[in-house]
Amino acid sequence: MDLDSVKRFLEKGSPNDSSVIDSMPYRFFEPFVIQGLKVDLIEPGHIICSMKIPTRLLNSGNSLHGGATAMLVDVVGSAVIYTVGAPMTGVSVEINVSYMDAAYAGEEIEIESKALRIGKAIAVVSVELRKRKTGKIIAQGRHTKYLAVSSKL
Amino acid sequence: MDLDSVKRFLEKGSPNDSSVIDSMPYRFFEPFVIQGLKVDLIEPGHIICSMKIPTRLLNSGNSLHGGATAMLVDVVGSAVIYTVGAPMTGVSVEINVSYMDAAYAGEEIEIESKALRIGKAIAVVSVELRKRKTGKIIAQGRHTKYLAVSSKL
Amino acid sequence: MDLDSVKRFLEKGSPNDSSVIDSMPYRFFEPFVIQGLKVDLIEPGHIICSMKIPTRLLNSGNSLHGGATAMLVDVVGSAVIYTVGAPMTGVSVEINVSYMDAAYAGEEIEIESKALRIGKAIAVVSVELRKRKTGKIIAQGRHTKYLAVSSKL
Amino acid sequence: MDLDSVKRFLEKGSPNDSSVIDSMPYRFFEPFVIQGLKVDLIEPGHIICSMKIPTRLLNSGNSLHGGATAMLVDVVGSAVIYTVGAPMTGVSVEINVSYMDAAYAGEEIEIESKALRIGKAIAVVSVELRKRKTGKIIAQGRHTKYLAVSSKL
Repeated sequence: MDLDSVKRFLEKGSPNDSSVIDSMPYRFFEPFVIQGLKVDLIEPGHIICSMKIPTRLLNSGNSLHGGATAMLVDVVGSAVIYTVGAPMTGVSVEINVSYMDAAYAGEEIEIESKALRIGKAIAVVSVELRKRKTGKIIAQGRHTKYLAVSSKL
Repeated sequence: MDLDSVKRFLEKGSPNDSSVIDSMPYRFFEPFVIQGLKVDLIEPGHIICSMKIPTRLLNSGNSLHGGATAMLVDVVGSAVIYTVGAPMTGVSVEINVSYMDAAYAGEEIEIESKALRIGKAIAVVSVELRKRKTGKIIAQGRHTKYLAVSSKL
Repeated sequence: MDLDSVKRFLEKGSPNDSSVIDSMPYRFFEPFVIQGLKVDLIEPGHIICSMKIPTRLLNSGNSLHGGATAMLVDVVGSAVIYTVGAPMTGVSVEINVSYMDAAYAGEEIEIESKALRIGKAIAVVSVELRKRKTGKIIAQGRHTKYLAVSSKL
Repeated sequence: MDLDSVKRFLEKGSPNDSSVIDSMPYRFFEPFVIQGLKVDLIEPGHIICSMKIPTRLLNSGNSLHGGATAMLVDVVGSAVIYTVGAPMTGVSVEINVSYMDAAYAGEEIEIESKALRIGKAIAVVSVELRKRKTGKIIAQGRHTKYLAVSSKL
């Protein structure tokens, strides 16, 4: 791929929709990704959600975009920290994701999140995405947060 | 936070906009995030982009969402692989991101990506987000891809 | 800490033992770390080992050295790949470890490794270290290997 | 590889040397690995070391063991935190390493560590191992530490 094509790929945005995107609501990223998520089980330190892969989250290979997977690790991983009574603040320290299989449009996936450690300062959670039908792992990641953020940052 | 509130947080989607979101275009996630990205430098194995943090990508703390940062590590990291002649295929193996500082709406950021290794099978790149004004690091991550994907997957 | 002290810390080696260390056997690192490991369960894709933390693997805080933990993620993670018939070759692509609790000298720990994905080219495994008595997690990591290494590298 | 062979591989320790290993000094792991390290440059937030790969740190493929690389990311990454005045305490939160090339016995390598962020509570550093002769990257990792550890843990 020549350099001009890579440049165009990065600057493409959405030619027809650039003004549409620019006028999108404040903080729209999170609802944009998680719209359609259902919580199937929630207990302290443990959440299982499900989702049908929507076409808006596909990549150029027509499977769930790796960036959307990382976003789900972030959000569902944060949520499991709240289930053990941690405040809804805290900042991300590290997110990592291993990608193991593709998930296609319309596929039902499960997202399971477990608290590995919830301390006063540091919380670590794991998040796994699986195909509901077969249990096959799509991705597994961990999310580390720092909880002791002062309200006067 | 009680369990019902966590459940509502995950299932909130966007109450007023759920049908809007559901009807969004195929593969809209990527343009949604990268709309507004400019390429300032592009050469084999090296890209520097810039972006003004848009309000649509903020989190509940009003700074760039950690999931959006991970998405930029994914996309700009993939792009730098293409600059050295790799095919526009390949699948993500691993993405990791360390978060070091917050970036607020309207702030100019730089995203620099470097190829660390581009082999026949495995490519590893680093991506760093910095504040343009001060050079302060916002986040640093690595993206590992497997390139030797058969066209007959 | 002043710069000279940091320099001495890094160059300290073992003043009394430097010639002892220099004359140590070829490939001694692996047996040095895993000496004392017992395999409690082994089946395809799944291994549970145990170990009593030896004093030689302690850090300056008198708990299991983080580098030794990473080494155990490497070795026990590689071993679980072999249990599913993969060849004893392959090279590491990525190792990551989250540290959650300290393990002290004489403590019994369990090391559980699971194959998350064993493909023809890429294998991903998870490794978790726990305190045997309480089940508390000490560390959790993932190890990604590239298996399709040519014999004529 | 059959399950019995994997079990023997993990329990091998060092048949002839098991009593030698068991009688090794307290905290011997760190000097065992870093013996031979030289500090070539040290300034606040930045360290460059060099090392000639010793045969004791080789793996079964006769290159630097991935666990030894992770250990170097741990130790040299910690050291760069001390150069900016942080206390010699702190605990590891996360270590990650991408492996890009093999380093063989006798090869001169450089290990460069940079402070990416040193806050009151969280420090993040990057560590890169390179071949001295060619500058080729062998591995790159990040080490995250939590610094605000009470002395009365």
